[in-house]
Amino acid sequence: MTMKILRTIHAEDLEDIAIGGALLGTGGGGDPYVGKLMAQEAIRKHGPVKLVDVEALAHDALVVPVCMMGAPTVMTEKLPQGDELMNAFRQLEKVLGRKIDAVLCGEAGGINSTTPFVVAAASGLPLVDGDGMGRAYPELQMETFGLHGVSATPMVLCDDKGNSLVLETVNNAWTERLARAATVEMGGSALLAFYPMSGESAKKSVVRGTLSLCLSLGQTLRETRFAHTDPVAAIAGMLGASVIFNGRVRDVDRRTVGGFARGHARLDGLEDWKGHTLKLDFQNEFLMAERDGEIVCTTPDLITLLEAESGNPVTADSLRYGLRLVALAFPCNPQWQTPEGIALVGPRYFGYDTDYTPYPFGG
Amino acid sequence: MTMKILRTIHAEDLEDIAIGGALLGTGGGGDPYVGKLMAQEAIRKHGPVKLVDVEALAHDALVVPVCMMGAPTVMTEKLPQGDELMNAFRQLEKVLGRKIDAVLCGEAGGINSTTPFVVAAASGLPLVDGDGMGRAYPELQMETFGLHGVSATPMVLCDDKGNSLVLETVNNAWTERLARAATVEMGGSALLAFYPMSGESAKKSVVRGTLSLCLSLGQTLRETRFAHTDPVAAIAGMLGASVIFNGRVRDVDRRTVGGFARGHARLDGLEDWKGHTLKLDFQNEFLMAERDGEIVCTTPDLITLLEAESGNPVTADSLRYGLRLVALAFPCNPQWQTPEGIALVGPRYFGYDTDYTPYPFGG
Repeated sequence: MTMKILRTIHAEDLEDIAIGGALLGTGGGGDPYVGKLMAQEAIRKHGPVKLVDVEALAHDALVVPVCMMGAPTVMTEKLPQGDELMNAFRQLEKVLGRKIDAVLCGEAGGINSTTPFVVAAASGLPLVDGDGMGRAYPELQMETFGLHGVSATPMVLCDDKGNSLVLETVNNAWTERLARAATVEMGGSALLAFYPMSGESAKKSVVRGTLSLCLSLGQTLRETRFAHTDPVAAIAGMLGASVIFNGRVRDVDRRTVGGFARGHARLDGLEDWKGHTLKLDFQNEFLMAERDGEIVCTTPDLITLLEAESGNPVTADSLRYGLRLVALAFPCNPQWQTPEGIALVGPRYFGYDTDYTPYPFGG
Repeated sequence: MTMKILRTIHAEDLEDIAIGGALLGTGGGGDPYVGKLMAQEAIRKHGPVKLVDVEALAHDALVVPVCMMGAPTVMTEKLPQGDELMNAFRQLEKVLGRKIDAVLCGEAGGINSTTPFVVAAASGLPLVDGDGMGRAYPELQMETFGLHGVSATPMVLCDDKGNSLVLETVNNAWTERLARAATVEMGGSALLAFYPMSGESAKKSVVRGTLSLCLSLGQTLRETRFAHTDPVAAIAGMLGASVIFNGRVRDVDRRTVGGFARGHARLDGLEDWKGHTLKLDFQNEFLMAERDGEIVCTTPDLITLLEAESGNPVTADSLRYGLRLVALAFPCNPQWQTPEGIALVGPRYFGYDTDYTPYPFGG
């Protein structure tokens, strides 16, 4: 299959993509640093990656997303080899009995903004510019692919020791349950190839352009440093985001439970927000922001934290007392705002007794 | 493949086999009643089962054991459909890319003394007279097959909802870990096909004749009822077992933990054993018997409980205050007495700070 290449991604581009991935990671999704190193090594070894628009896919093309799964806190400690992702990808190809035509990104936020580049480089296959979330989310069934009837299985899950599982489940919630139990047993992280789909399904379900967006976000942030312009304003402008808080971290409560990093952080306001507080809840990702006890933004809309000075994204993992941060909020991809999308990733799914109100409230 | 049939097993034979399976179940292995019903239904639907000697297998035959996995307490509550076992068997055949020639029993004790009859009946394939334990054991790596280098994987695990997993692991202990985590998530029980092996490997590793033994044990117990002879003496004679206690259940401590039924029971002595106590520890199966604080018998040797009056086997699940019981002990298959066998199923594996001494001590 030949298809029009949107752009060619070289090893050095991964620096920018990882920064952009951390911004879309909304505090979770794992530290993109690990995935960046894996992707850079793969590109140096096998050559650059061809990024293609989803429209370039043939209707009957076979497209497969790849991901790393686990608690971000564990994924950063337990470096994968890189080969496991290719193992999962090739094993799924064998299960499907057919050559895969293109690689897809399951989650453009966090570490998984970069992991698909490992497989695209090693396989020589094109990588679709887009993903299945437009952000990061903690569970496997939280993919826009599923909103269009794509099954997460057959799925292959591999660990760093050489163990692998092929899953076939009755629905995507069961895929998550069984894969999560295996991932916990495998030591807290695993690598997977899942949601095999046709080009036609990809065109319906992919959140488009998110890998290019990651690259542009990283480039923009880098350029503000040279130009000495306001990084936060530049990032907010690109994302269509607004500042919901500016303050210092007062306390962080973080636990690793059932394969997830769960907890909350509290910030005390500075400047315009002096005397105010912000509470951020997370399950890997930031799910809800409450300012002075009032909800400001909830999942599926995006909440992301930047270092006030540098504009660098800050993950929930790296939150610590005294950090000075700016909180941004911005609207999610419209696919998440459908009743099916809200059922899958809205506040009630995560145990909050509140309906979803699109950000900005009354906006 | 045509092979000499040892005997043909009809639906009514399953009554006896299930009783024998409960005796070899050493208190665990799940209630054979459930497996018996499944097997009887399969035989009535598809015809009788051809039991064959392991020597009748061609060296290059493909032989596959099938099992039910889970906490016995759950397996009895959560009746499988029967089809799941065939699903696992056929899916493993697909993974192996080759027709299976014969069915094997993974565990002749408890429910799994009867589950292979379901697959043998439904597939029309011969069933090997023997198993991989000569008793029941709680974990998947505890098979004599593994002592001869047979890998538990590729293995297929199915649940009653339609979910399935294909496992490929680096060793049999990892198979157990990952399959156990999945089984717990699946609701506490699952059905599987595993340890695919050649006829040559089966001849080296199978504990021979255990299904015929189950049948004979059940027949003998039934015949003592008509003849009004001593059932306990008849069973003990067939097993080469001796009576280690006779008493009433005083207390039972039983929990379902991590997919296992764990705990212990205490018996107060009667008749010859008046004034004495017996403590039995179990993890699904009875693992250790202590009389008046002294160890009398430990795994891998077998400890089994019979109702004093009827000689009917009693599982750890059904132990309750006041039951009058006889405890038997008898030696395990010699394969378990090798250093590799003891490492896999000896008392130290189960957390006891004692070496294995073959039963009877000093005998």
